[in-house]
Amino acid sequence: MTDPLPRRHSTPPRPERRYPDQLYSGWGDPAQAVQLPPAILDLLAKGLGVKTPGHTAPALQDIPVPESRLNQTAARTRIEQLIGAEHVTTTPVARIRHLRGKSTPDLLKLRDGDATDAPDAVVLPGTHGEVQQLLELCSEERIAVTPFGGGTSVVGGLTPQAAQFAAAIALDVRRLNALRALDDESRTATLEPGLRCPEAEELLNARGYTIGHFPQSYEYLTLGGAAAARSSGQASAGYGRFDERVVAIKVATPRGTIELGRAPKSAAGPDLRQLFLGSEGAFGVITELMLEVKPVPAARVYDGWRFESFAAGAEALRALIQDGPVPTVLRLSDEAETALNLARPSEIGAGTARGCLAIVGYEGTAENVAERRERVTEILNDVGARLDAAAGQGWSEGRYRGPYLRDALLDAGALVETLETVTFWSNLRPLYDAVGDALRQSLTEQGTPPVVLCHISHVYPSGASLYFTVAAAQANDPLGQWATAKRAASDAIVNMGGSITHHHGIGIDHREHYAQQVGPLAIGALRAVKAELDPAGIMNPGVLIP
Amino acid sequence: MTDPLPRRHSTPPRPERRYPDQLYSGWGDPAQAVQLPPAILDLLAKGLGVKTPGHTAPALQDIPVPESRLNQTAARTRIEQLIGAEHVTTTPVARIRHLRGKSTPDLLKLRDGDATDAPDAVVLPGTHGEVQQLLELCSEERIAVTPFGGGTSVVGGLTPQAAQFAAAIALDVRRLNALRALDDESRTATLEPGLRCPEAEELLNARGYTIGHFPQSYEYLTLGGAAAARSSGQASAGYGRFDERVVAIKVATPRGTIELGRAPKSAAGPDLRQLFLGSEGAFGVITELMLEVKPVPAARVYDGWRFESFAAGAEALRALIQDGPVPTVLRLSDEAETALNLARPSEIGAGTARGCLAIVGYEGTAENVAERRERVTEILNDVGARLDAAAGQGWSEGRYRGPYLRDALLDAGALVETLETVTFWSNLRPLYDAVGDALRQSLTEQGTPPVVLCHISHVYPSGASLYFTVAAAQANDPLGQWATAKRAASDAIVNMGGSITHHHGIGIDHREHYAQQVGPLAIGALRAVKAELDPAGIMNPGVLIP
Repeated sequence: MTDPLPRRHSTPPRPERRYPDQLYSGWGDPAQAVQLPPAILDLLAKGLGVKTPGHTAPALQDIPVPESRLNQTAARTRIEQLIGAEHVTTTPVARIRHLRGKSTPDLLKLRDGDATDAPDAVVLPGTHGEVQQLLELCSEERIAVTPFGGGTSVVGGLTPQAAQFAAAIALDVRRLNALRALDDESRTATLEPGLRCPEAEELLNARGYTIGHFPQSYEYLTLGGAAAARSSGQASAGYGRFDERVVAIKVATPRGTIELGRAPKSAAGPDLRQLFLGSEGAFGVITELMLEVKPVPAARVYDGWRFESFAAGAEALRALIQDGPVPTVLRLSDEAETALNLARPSEIGAGTARGCLAIVGYEGTAENVAERRERVTEILNDVGARLDAAAGQGWSEGRYRGPYLRDALLDAGALVETLETVTFWSNLRPLYDAVGDALRQSLTEQGTPPVVLCHISHVYPSGASLYFTVAAAQANDPLGQWATAKRAASDAIVNMGGSITHHHGIGIDHREHYAQQVGPLAIGALRAVKAELDPAGIMNPGVLIP
Repeated sequence: MTDPLPRRHSTPPRPERRYPDQLYSGWGDPAQAVQLPPAILDLLAKGLGVKTPGHTAPALQDIPVPESRLNQTAARTRIEQLIGAEHVTTTPVARIRHLRGKSTPDLLKLRDGDATDAPDAVVLPGTHGEVQQLLELCSEERIAVTPFGGGTSVVGGLTPQAAQFAAAIALDVRRLNALRALDDESRTATLEPGLRCPEAEELLNARGYTIGHFPQSYEYLTLGGAAAARSSGQASAGYGRFDERVVAIKVATPRGTIELGRAPKSAAGPDLRQLFLGSEGAFGVITELMLEVKPVPAARVYDGWRFESFAAGAEALRALIQDGPVPTVLRLSDEAETALNLARPSEIGAGTARGCLAIVGYEGTAENVAERRERVTEILNDVGARLDAAAGQGWSEGRYRGPYLRDALLDAGALVETLETVTFWSNLRPLYDAVGDALRQSLTEQGTPPVVLCHISHVYPSGASLYFTVAAAQANDPLGQWATAKRAASDAIVNMGGSITHHHGIGIDHREHYAQQVGPLAIGALRAVKAELDPAGIMNPGVLIP
């Protein structure tokens, strides 16, 4: 950012992550893959009727990929001249690793060996200037550009509709990975978008600070992706949503560079940062972010609390977020999720879990944590909840494990996916019922009665999000099976006044319901902005804007 | 809002405020006009060289107003048919009362009997539907529309550039003044934009709630104006800025109606509410707002604290907002403002004020107020500040009196105006010095050395606002005198990395520096949105967007 701030620290770019990555097609680190214990396989068979194992993915190098439209073109030469030939690759494995995101349909397609949507090349610019020039070049050459961070989209945010373009590239931001500046007095850090959350935390922790953003995708999510898709983390009650921590952004668009956020808060016109936060790469590429940071907490405590019912737990969460004291982590599983406890597969079916489990966490100074914990404990005891400290610890240890479990369940022949929404407190129960009913009805009608689990994942003074996990036996066409169920759930969400997403974003998958939700004039305004900043329409075409 | 929320309460529209208003040309209620004591007149003469009284305004009915371009036109007939002839007026006094806002230049022009910018008519629709149809009608007839709430703009937000239109109307929203719904569970209230802050508080207080928005313009500011101009109140440390309290909005644009904010927080695309908050009527008219409300505080305590220096006080405010406990009100006057104490004119020159006075206020439950106050008191004692409880009480009683004092000072022949900015903590002192120096140099060069006062009016974890008050003797051409000084201050703000405004907005006066601040691409995006929603360009033309 071109501001007069002191730049107390800055780091050289980090060593590049190994590239291309490993050949494993599932989530994350293959060494951490989950083995389902026999008790669960038994439960899947008896409870859901899972009889046939699912397709497993071929090794990535065995998946056929269409020929790159950039091979031996003048455009490729131009790109290579701009950023260096070593930063442009069209190898099949690299292209597959930048193909789609991590939704269950994305995984199912890969298990079917379908790589038809692979980008024609993976391109890794190293500076803002290179990104800026690359977008101008791609505008001229009619090359679609999909900004690529951690590849964790679960809504089709990495699946542009690029057929009518000359080619499509994934613009991987991993080389933009420096801590550019740290302002101790203002408690802001200027960071590059390709830093994954753990990398950013490592750089900041060493200097005494944290961003405080810990979503389930934490290990892979990049800062740029978190901003572009308005991510929310598990500690959002304490640290806020990611977009709320963004003070300033620098964005390369096909028409040039925009820098917004020269001061923390102001009434200088509409808050235009908000046009780019949540824009999912449809207008440009975020190349620098200034974030509010907080001191690394000296103390972290995560308690489990058991409530008699989901309603009683929700009421308690509402009281805490509205009247305080506000914990750092606040989430509540419904009866079904508590009983199944997917976060601790070793305990599934152990029958230890009753009622509804809430996780109530505190991070801060030792004094502040102790003080809040004491008062919250008093309040929750008063409403009849029961402390279960071990459950809090267990949640904390398994908090990033969910996606690994999904791969194992897909292997076993189960269909597993999540979806989420948000609404006002007064509408929470009707929405919860409507979405659950829609999922149960749709999948039961398809001959695969599901189990539907839900938790309140984020709370605000005026409302809360609902995060659903659905499991059923895979039908013959699991992609079609889920598309039908997902449509039923999405219709229920929009009809019942919920938002089509709380923190997963729009991508391609939610476009239609998003347009229903905001109406044609709002979509028209987005289109007008896109036409202004990206007249050739190369930026992540089809994503967000129908 | 077309949502499925329970509507636990709703009120019929309030009785209309008397219209047309009184004939007084100054701020607010003429009964509250300030009489300057001889000590102050003496101070003005000796300290600033004020020798000649300023022009006083003619009685409004004596000011010549150009003939209305709507008299005897088909367009006027159409408007009257739409909303009723009794809700359309072209009387000179009504037009003058909707002429410009309340900046010192606005007041000086009126004192000179200049009503050349008066709108051709004042139009008072009573429903969202009427507003919507009116905008469509005005688009067809090429009539410029300026939404008008409390008329408190100090940046030319009510001075459209309408010469090239067939006519210009002020669309006064005072008849849209109902509390539409109150959701106790979600703690949200749906209100209409024409409610002035005290009216909204009265409606909500009766049901146990407050918005918590108390800017200096509180008595006249409407909710619609607060949203359209992103107002900040004196209790922003505790309640947040006004835009942060807006959950949902309904906006009539020339192209149709947009409703945004169906859920409290979400990642469903960019937060498009933010396009309209701060848009200053350039895209449409906000006709309904859903706001977060809080329980009426049982306790309110405002302490004064005296610091040795502005730097020491700023450091203490920063520690509180970054590490807590966070008071509800936090502001700090510099040495000059503390000494002069404009908020308590009876004490000016009494020499009682030394060092720098901070106001540290607490609102909430008795327990919460006591707890925060005890801990803050400990922290501030530790850094050597001295409690001055009476100063807090005095501030509280005089908090809305500033604008009345200005009228009296203008009468006496002084030039008085305010301006404000915001920046990061690490840049606060350089910006403070630069703006103060620019004002002193500019006015001294013009032969009228000023006194420049400043306070930190709003604090955030990463930065704070600076609110300057400038007083000098009026020169022969006080409008030109101030224009020169204001330009020097604005240049200093933008050159030093500040925002051209923290909470006054852009209007016409800040457009040029705003464009420098955000750059041509951002302005292009705003223009594209305007072209989409307001193709005829009738909405507050020239305001915000150059």
